[in-house]
Amino acid sequence: MKVSLVTNILQVNERIAGQNKRLFDEKGVLVINIMSAPGAGKTTLIEQTIRVLKNEYRIAVIEGDIQSTYDADKIAATGVPVIQINTGGACHLDGNMISQTFDKLDFDAMDLLIIENVGNLVCPAEFNMGEDFKVMLLSVPEGDDKPLKYPLMFHESSALLINKIDLLPYVDCSTEKIRNESLKINPDLAIFEISAKRGDGLNGWLDWLRLKLKEKQR
Amino acid sequence: MKVSLVTNILQVNERIAGQNKRLFDEKGVLVINIMSAPGAGKTTLIEQTIRVLKNEYRIAVIEGDIQSTYDADKIAATGVPVIQINTGGACHLDGNMISQTFDKLDFDAMDLLIIENVGNLVCPAEFNMGEDFKVMLLSVPEGDDKPLKYPLMFHESSALLINKIDLLPYVDCSTEKIRNESLKINPDLAIFEISAKRGDGLNGWLDWLRLKLKEKQR
Repeated sequence: MKVSLVTNILQVNERIAGQNKRLFDEKGVLVINIMSAPGAGKTTLIEQTIRVLKNEYRIAVIEGDIQSTYDADKIAATGVPVIQINTGGACHLDGNMISQTFDKLDFDAMDLLIIENVGNLVCPAEFNMGEDFKVMLLSVPEGDDKPLKYPLMFHESSALLINKIDLLPYVDCSTEKIRNESLKINPDLAIFEISAKRGDGLNGWLDWLRLKLKEKQR
Repeated sequence: MKVSLVTNILQVNERIAGQNKRLFDEKGVLVINIMSAPGAGKTTLIEQTIRVLKNEYRIAVIEGDIQSTYDADKIAATGVPVIQINTGGACHLDGNMISQTFDKLDFDAMDLLIIENVGNLVCPAEFNMGEDFKVMLLSVPEGDDKPLKYPLMFHESSALLINKIDLLPYVDCSTEKIRNESLKINPDLAIFEISAKRGDGLNGWLDWLRLKLKEKQR
């Protein structure tokens, strides 16, 4: 019984996600859904991404958190429009929450919409929102056994950013093992090793994003 | 509609958790439910705890993971009985999953049952399993803003272990801020700063657990 209820919720969500996607495509806006465990560095990555790309593209951000506007305040400091969704307990964003923000967003003045999901390595991967791509972060202190233990997010994502590589000397984590295990789950995954805080390795990620923006606007 | 469905699921769970609790109390077994984000160090903490306490108490472990037996294999190496629950996608353990293991557990030969929940800082806090105490880990690379952003788990837990303090020199994280923010949410929270890997600070945690074991067996 519980399973069938969950299936219903997912079906309703798919329908709304499809509506969102049609709007995003019509407006030519690239939408990426950024997911990770809590504290893996999503907000820092988004800040760094905006700092470089805001001179090339018009960007907006939707921040998902259970409560607080802590992350949205940080993004607002970069000067791009940002909308905070407080889920009030819910462990992920879904298509309906995103569509509720549309009256506050100007899609005609936007090339790229970045959605920062709730920090959770499990549930967000189950809920489409109409995005073009799911992007996930895994930070090296979390350990190299995570693809094996939380495979769905690795399966659903188009890019994996292995973050906090500045901490590699101090933790037991092999980025090679993360790469190998992730590619077994998802052979098409683009993988970048970065330190969002220090800026290492960001060029590969930014070039991937520029390519997706170019493809969307063609 | 979604909210009422969720409420029903939680009500059913509370009933089963109550049944579990009556059994645990009848058998005089202390049950702790260990929760954290993925990779915060739950399994290492449990290994270290068993290494010291297995000479004093009879311990068993239930390992919760979405898939794999990776953690259960590590616990089995300590020599205590361990049962793996694979949730098959579900983001938390619940009362029913725990009761399904009872035919494989000998409660008459047990003082302490440690349940390692699925790595997730959100959902597990909503599901009681009949445990005496919830215990949470927060590792310092996750950052000191987590009590503010994920308050429920801090609210529901009786003890907070601030883990990976060996990484403090390399990350932006104030354990004092974690303490202050956590105590605002839950003034009764027992807080221990530890490095489960290196063994720092474990005595305070072990003494807390010994006291709870003594109280349960009285």
